[in-house]
Amino acid sequence: MKKINFIDGPNLNLLGKREPEIYGSETLNDIHELVRSHIIKRGYEIEPSFFQSNSEGEIVDCIQSSSQFCHGLIINAAGFSHTSVAVLDSLLAIHIPKIEIHLTNLFKREDFRHHSFISKGVNGVICGFGSNSYLLAVDGIQKLI
Amino acid sequence: MKKINFIDGPNLNLLGKREPEIYGSETLNDIHELVRSHIIKRGYEIEPSFFQSNSEGEIVDCIQSSSQFCHGLIINAAGFSHTSVAVLDSLLAIHIPKIEIHLTNLFKREDFRHHSFISKGVNGVICGFGSNSYLLAVDGIQKLI
Amino acid sequence: MKKINFIDGPNLNLLGKREPEIYGSETLNDIHELVRSHIIKRGYEIEPSFFQSNSEGEIVDCIQSSSQFCHGLIINAAGFSHTSVAVLDSLLAIHIPKIEIHLTNLFKREDFRHHSFISKGVNGVICGFGSNSYLLAVDGIQKLI
Amino acid sequence: MKKINFIDGPNLNLLGKREPEIYGSETLNDIHELVRSHIIKRGYEIEPSFFQSNSEGEIVDCIQSSSQFCHGLIINAAGFSHTSVAVLDSLLAIHIPKIEIHLTNLFKREDFRHHSFISKGVNGVICGFGSNSYLLAVDGIQKLI
Amino acid sequence: MKKINFIDGPNLNLLGKREPEIYGSETLNDIHELVRSHIIKRGYEIEPSFFQSNSEGEIVDCIQSSSQFCHGLIINAAGFSHTSVAVLDSLLAIHIPKIEIHLTNLFKREDFRHHSFISKGVNGVICGFGSNSYLLAVDGIQKLI
Amino acid sequence: MKKINFIDGPNLNLLGKREPEIYGSETLNDIHELVRSHIIKRGYEIEPSFFQSNSEGEIVDCIQSSSQFCHGLIINAAGFSHTSVAVLDSLLAIHIPKIEIHLTNLFKREDFRHHSFISKGVNGVICGFGSNSYLLAVDGIQKLI
Amino acid sequence: MKKINFIDGPNLNLLGKREPEIYGSETLNDIHELVRSHIIKRGYEIEPSFFQSNSEGEIVDCIQSSSQFCHGLIINAAGFSHTSVAVLDSLLAIHIPKIEIHLTNLFKREDFRHHSFISKGVNGVICGFGSNSYLLAVDGIQKLI
Amino acid sequence: MKKINFIDGPNLNLLGKREPEIYGSETLNDIHELVRSHIIKRGYEIEPSFFQSNSEGEIVDCIQSSSQFCHGLIINAAGFSHTSVAVLDSLLAIHIPKIEIHLTNLFKREDFRHHSFISKGVNGVICGFGSNSYLLAVDGIQKLI
Amino acid sequence: MKKINFIDGPNLNLLGKREPEIYGSETLNDIHELVRSHIIKRGYEIEPSFFQSNSEGEIVDCIQSSSQFCHGLIINAAGFSHTSVAVLDSLLAIHIPKIEIHLTNLFKREDFRHHSFISKGVNGVICGFGSNSYLLAVDGIQKLI
Amino acid sequence: MKKINFIDGPNLNLLGKREPEIYGSETLNDIHELVRSHIIKRGYEIEPSFFQSNSEGEIVDCIQSSSQFCHGLIINAAGFSHTSVAVLDSLLAIHIPKIEIHLTNLFKREDFRHHSFISKGVNGVICGFGSNSYLLAVDGIQKLI
Amino acid sequence: MKKINFIDGPNLNLLGKREPEIYGSETLNDIHELVRSHIIKRGYEIEPSFFQSNSEGEIVDCIQSSSQFCHGLIINAAGFSHTSVAVLDSLLAIHIPKIEIHLTNLFKREDFRHHSFISKGVNGVICGFGSNSYLLAVDGIQKLI
Amino acid sequence: MKKINFIDGPNLNLLGKREPEIYGSETLNDIHELVRSHIIKRGYEIEPSFFQSNSEGEIVDCIQSSSQFCHGLIINAAGFSHTSVAVLDSLLAIHIPKIEIHLTNLFKREDFRHHSFISKGVNGVICGFGSNSYLLAVDGIQKLI
Repeated sequence: MKKINFIDGPNLNLLGKREPEIYGSETLNDIHELVRSHIIKRGYEIEPSFFQSNSEGEIVDCIQSSSQFCHGLIINAAGFSHTSVAVLDSLLAIHIPKIEIHLTNLFKREDFRHHSFISKGVNGVICGFGSNSYLLAVDGIQKLI
Repeated sequence: MKKINFIDGPNLNLLGKREPEIYGSETLNDIHELVRSHIIKRGYEIEPSFFQSNSEGEIVDCIQSSSQFCHGLIINAAGFSHTSVAVLDSLLAIHIPKIEIHLTNLFKREDFRHHSFISKGVNGVICGFGSNSYLLAVDGIQKLI
Repeated sequence: MKKINFIDGPNLNLLGKREPEIYGSETLNDIHELVRSHIIKRGYEIEPSFFQSNSEGEIVDCIQSSSQFCHGLIINAAGFSHTSVAVLDSLLAIHIPKIEIHLTNLFKREDFRHHSFISKGVNGVICGFGSNSYLLAVDGIQKLI
Repeated sequence: MKKINFIDGPNLNLLGKREPEIYGSETLNDIHELVRSHIIKRGYEIEPSFFQSNSEGEIVDCIQSSSQFCHGLIINAAGFSHTSVAVLDSLLAIHIPKIEIHLTNLFKREDFRHHSFISKGVNGVICGFGSNSYLLAVDGIQKLI
Repeated sequence: MKKINFIDGPNLNLLGKREPEIYGSETLNDIHELVRSHIIKRGYEIEPSFFQSNSEGEIVDCIQSSSQFCHGLIINAAGFSHTSVAVLDSLLAIHIPKIEIHLTNLFKREDFRHHSFISKGVNGVICGFGSNSYLLAVDGIQKLI
Repeated sequence: MKKINFIDGPNLNLLGKREPEIYGSETLNDIHELVRSHIIKRGYEIEPSFFQSNSEGEIVDCIQSSSQFCHGLIINAAGFSHTSVAVLDSLLAIHIPKIEIHLTNLFKREDFRHHSFISKGVNGVICGFGSNSYLLAVDGIQKLI
Repeated sequence: MKKINFIDGPNLNLLGKREPEIYGSETLNDIHELVRSHIIKRGYEIEPSFFQSNSEGEIVDCIQSSSQFCHGLIINAAGFSHTSVAVLDSLLAIHIPKIEIHLTNLFKREDFRHHSFISKGVNGVICGFGSNSYLLAVDGIQKLI
Repeated sequence: MKKINFIDGPNLNLLGKREPEIYGSETLNDIHELVRSHIIKRGYEIEPSFFQSNSEGEIVDCIQSSSQFCHGLIINAAGFSHTSVAVLDSLLAIHIPKIEIHLTNLFKREDFRHHSFISKGVNGVICGFGSNSYLLAVDGIQKLI
Repeated sequence: MKKINFIDGPNLNLLGKREPEIYGSETLNDIHELVRSHIIKRGYEIEPSFFQSNSEGEIVDCIQSSSQFCHGLIINAAGFSHTSVAVLDSLLAIHIPKIEIHLTNLFKREDFRHHSFISKGVNGVICGFGSNSYLLAVDGIQKLI
Repeated sequence: MKKINFIDGPNLNLLGKREPEIYGSETLNDIHELVRSHIIKRGYEIEPSFFQSNSEGEIVDCIQSSSQFCHGLIINAAGFSHTSVAVLDSLLAIHIPKIEIHLTNLFKREDFRHHSFISKGVNGVICGFGSNSYLLAVDGIQKLI
Repeated sequence: MKKINFIDGPNLNLLGKREPEIYGSETLNDIHELVRSHIIKRGYEIEPSFFQSNSEGEIVDCIQSSSQFCHGLIINAAGFSHTSVAVLDSLLAIHIPKIEIHLTNLFKREDFRHHSFISKGVNGVICGFGSNSYLLAVDGIQKLI
Repeated sequence: MKKINFIDGPNLNLLGKREPEIYGSETLNDIHELVRSHIIKRGYEIEPSFFQSNSEGEIVDCIQSSSQFCHGLIINAAGFSHTSVAVLDSLLAIHIPKIEIHLTNLFKREDFRHHSFISKGVNGVICGFGSNSYLLAVDGIQKLI
């Protein structure tokens, strides 16, 4: 079984409650269940792990450790996408496939959400599909690992 | 059967020959075959059509007509992504699911490739997965149509 | 009879269907009829011709040829207004009165619509009056030709 | 009879004498006469009033009071167009049709004249037709009131 | 009793010792006492809670939890004001009255302190009153809760 | 009795009628009454005076004269906040406590409202509390005079 | 006798009291006396007139009228230098020698004081000599009239 | 015989008639004759082909096909130089010597003509020599093929 | 014995493994040993302490506490250098000698690494010497404490 | 006798021949004679010395040495004004009165001439008076030494 | 015989040794020989002179004197191209044909090499042909002198 | 014995006299003596040479020649750091270890001192240690040569 680490950044623990007109009504747990079902449905030999934190440092820690036990990394860095060189550097430091995802199409939103530092540290970017962004990322990373 | 229109912009007819170290060695025909196989493999009731042009006007025409016979649109506008308000406006004018894709992770490349006008006119964006970007877009749009 | 050429740019063939809350519900044909009626009502000795294209090159061709058989040019370059030096250069190359028009007040819309390259190549600019922009342009150019 | 208020901003009292190679040789009074003749010729049931001031505050006052006795407002804010949020705010505060006009095509002139704050506060913009900008604005506002 | 949560960001634990010529000589505890006295003096039915952290993640956590047990939030995000989209997003995610405060008038200081991301996530902003900014915020939020 | 001068800038005379969804339904007179009641309720030995003008020059005059008969100044410079160095200079020229207030949270509005020249000339800034901004400013300035 | 009009802009009526460490301790009257003495000492056949206003409109009026009775204009537009296109336009509209002066060396001060709109409308600029800027301007304009 | 393809962009078909004070009085045919004479005079074993279009797409097509039958490419992309990533990408896609030419010295003209996207896709740039730019490009490319 | 605190920021715990072609093959422990040897070799009466964290908040905590038990601070803030006002503010808050170091010459790398917020909060900056940057900082701070 | 050093920068040795429509027809020697006559006419106890160089280094040398034998410095740094921090630093290093002059009104010319580094290093600036700028500078510096 | 002056700027004396992967392996003397051979081969009645300096002042001197004994000027200003207004001004001051050349295609290199001040002072620009840029410039200038 | 060349740029010959509150009271000779003592104290087999010039060209010359007789280069380019591509290019042209030093912490000073062109041409940068910057550079370069 190959392992994929899902890292969710700040405020994603509030999914379902947080501005549902923007982020949808599914909770992060709902999305995790969708991921698990999707892996089974697709028949992938993949074991997902999930990590959410509002702390930049914990996310950096988690990214670093991913390279030791995981075959791939799927990250929704949320607000840290736009502000964190530290997260970018941790992504650059590890050598497994890495996908950046976002629930919303950032390019339709406020200007400061159009730039993501971390895009420079990943293989590919998927945004705008709601919770389906997570499932597409599984399909995307599956071919890379 | 639902129809999805694939529109490929300027210079994508050269795929396989054009800077293969950047864009890969598959031709556009190879990618079309991958799309067809993928649809069958997934069991989607989808009929793909393919259009490539180096002309902004023809791409605008094709986008416009897509709304009359298609249920979804997947576009790799290549160089026009960064320069064409006309393509953006044609996307804004039609009301079917629309996905923007790119073979490469644009955010790792030259600065002028970091901004895409057309991102404001689509549901979601997928970039950096090579030819797999097309297949992920099929999966992504399938849930939207 | 003096001839005036009306040139409409990309996506204006969709008028009436395209984002009617922004662009109104009249079709381009409706507007052409309004122009013809207006000329008759005003008693101008003017014969209008109409050209629409989604192709920058065809619009440049049409502008160039206008100088050979027309006494004036009224252009709604739509998306090309913001991106085309080629259209500007063709306007600078001909020496008949030229008016730039827009259905909407561009200055109330997205930032990238605030700048028009082609304004530097025309005598005057009229925007924000819906289909009436075309009729005002007829009145405006009538005094110049 | 419907009333339309014409407001002319700083230095327009000098028309005819002020840089005539740019602004033409007609005085503001000449233009007022042209407006009156135009209304009669068109057969509009419109009574024009005219106000000119070099004072931003007086122009704001006049815009404010326009909403109480006028059905429409035509403003050539001249130099204040580029610098006055106060004039913009007064335009935003009243709910009658409002047209911004300029004698010259500002977009062919110095860079600092390309941006007008007040365009965000009007229905439409007409520029570059010399004194005819005023007459076109009458035709334009007549359809709106 | 209504609850108001006071959140103080990085380095505010050093108040009194940190650049007192800029930030004053009162400690954060002194300010908390002032807040308590102020509430009593005003006769508000308010119970304050206080939280200080140098960690962006802990502040995000605290903002999130505020919505569950508090009726209002008063935040001095200090250095995070200028750099944290995560803090902004957590403020946008909760629906209680929120006030941003600063001890100093940021607009008189270095350029990088003139922009606050979090201002977009609050009801109102108070800055420049020293420790009195906290008391004014209590008065301000009292009317909103 | 200490005197505080309240200066309101352009278009604030329209309060109650002007875009009430943004500025609220209270008139400037209503706010003045609120200020008077607030002073009595708080028991301050303060006598307020009120001045409103749409003229930058009159506001500069009023600021200048404030230093001769007042102990404090509370200013809502409205549109002049963003455009007037003259108002800033008059504030810098007088040496009594000065507070800048705004009804709305400017940082949630258009970009050109995010910068205020006059913030550099005051002790503190309060914005976003509607008419309560005036009352908070009274409390704020009371400690400074 | 040739006439020279001296126009002083906003807050210059406060000279002597206003930030004397920046602007010096001489009043505007003191400077007027220095100008009169200087003209006599130099033996110029010049009659000075003086005008100060805090109102942009009055300054525009005064500039306009200068061309009718004066042979030269010396202007310290103070804060309006940086913000007024209207003042620039009035200077461009008259055809007598015009000198811009400032008491202080603006280029050593805040960034927003480095740009003067009105410099484009004058023959020469003198700044940084305190009250002597006025006297040097007299010498400078004397050769131009 | 080696083949060199000359590609001329929008509005160059008007040469001789278009703003001759800027672009000279020679027609594009005149220039083609000059090129043929020059090749003979120099004794180069080169066969020139000529292509002009106002359509970006046709120019991209022509650049692409150049690599199949030509040994070198000389392009005057005119207005597309400043706006077309598609033309740049087609130049990057082919591996024959490529020269960018302009009749005028772009750096002496309007700001928007100072930047050329396509310069990144060619071996060398020659501008400002009028029709002689074409002949110098022949000499330049002759050494590269 | 004087104490010097060494603070290493995010991802420096990966030294030796992280992009060794950029950061070198020494681990952070190797560098600590080099520091200890260097101090002995130089004969300084200095006791080093070492702290590494991927958390901005912990680094702020550590900087703050440094002032209580240390005589000097040497910080390699890594990615936080470019994004953290909080770290800058904590440096500004303490009054012991402070040195900023970097392993690489940041000015040869990506643009976003050219700006360091924290440089404004230290005595001196040393970058580009690999692990020797740490030793030079010891020599540099030794003269300051 | 007090000594004033006149330093003229690059290309001023060409005065009279260099673009006389911009710089006038007087040579630098003519100007030196005008300066000498002016000093006599005014009755100043001043001895002028003149230095011209096209070399930045020689001008820095000359500025440095000025402080040892001169009581004042008048500099027309020409092209170096816009590009030389070295000249600025040498001016900052000496403590005698210093005046920056220009023949032309730089603010009416190309944008890159609007910024002068050296203005931050002088007491006052005089520009736009042709050769009279030199004489006004003598009068200006005479009061400062 | 007509004379052409070749001026080479800073560091071009190192050609052949300096970053040969960028600038090629020919020395400046090699290039001079190529120029001489080229002139003979072409049969031009031209006598070349060569000047190289690392000093901006000497290059300005040399440009100035060129107008007295030369019929044309070919300049590779190297690093001064991007930084020297003085060199631009000396080019503007002389009235013989002037060509700017560069060995490399500057537009493919670092951003700061994309802007050349001196392009505004020459007839034409040739870059990217290695040593052949010099020979093309001879051909180009031969038609202009 | 290995040779290290110390190059000091414009105005550093004034050290000790020039703004001592910024640059300290040591002269350049004092610093040279410190360097010599430091080398002896450290026991390095290094022979220093010293060069100071206010001329950019002489500094370029000196850098170039350094590669022929030196094993390392330590440069304080002072004002040229911020303005000279020529100095950068000469540093890039030689292949010995190179260190950039500054007496002051440039990042605490005026904005235009924050950018150094030459940092891209050196191994490492040391700034802010006063004369000790020179000694640290000796230690730093000693390990590189």
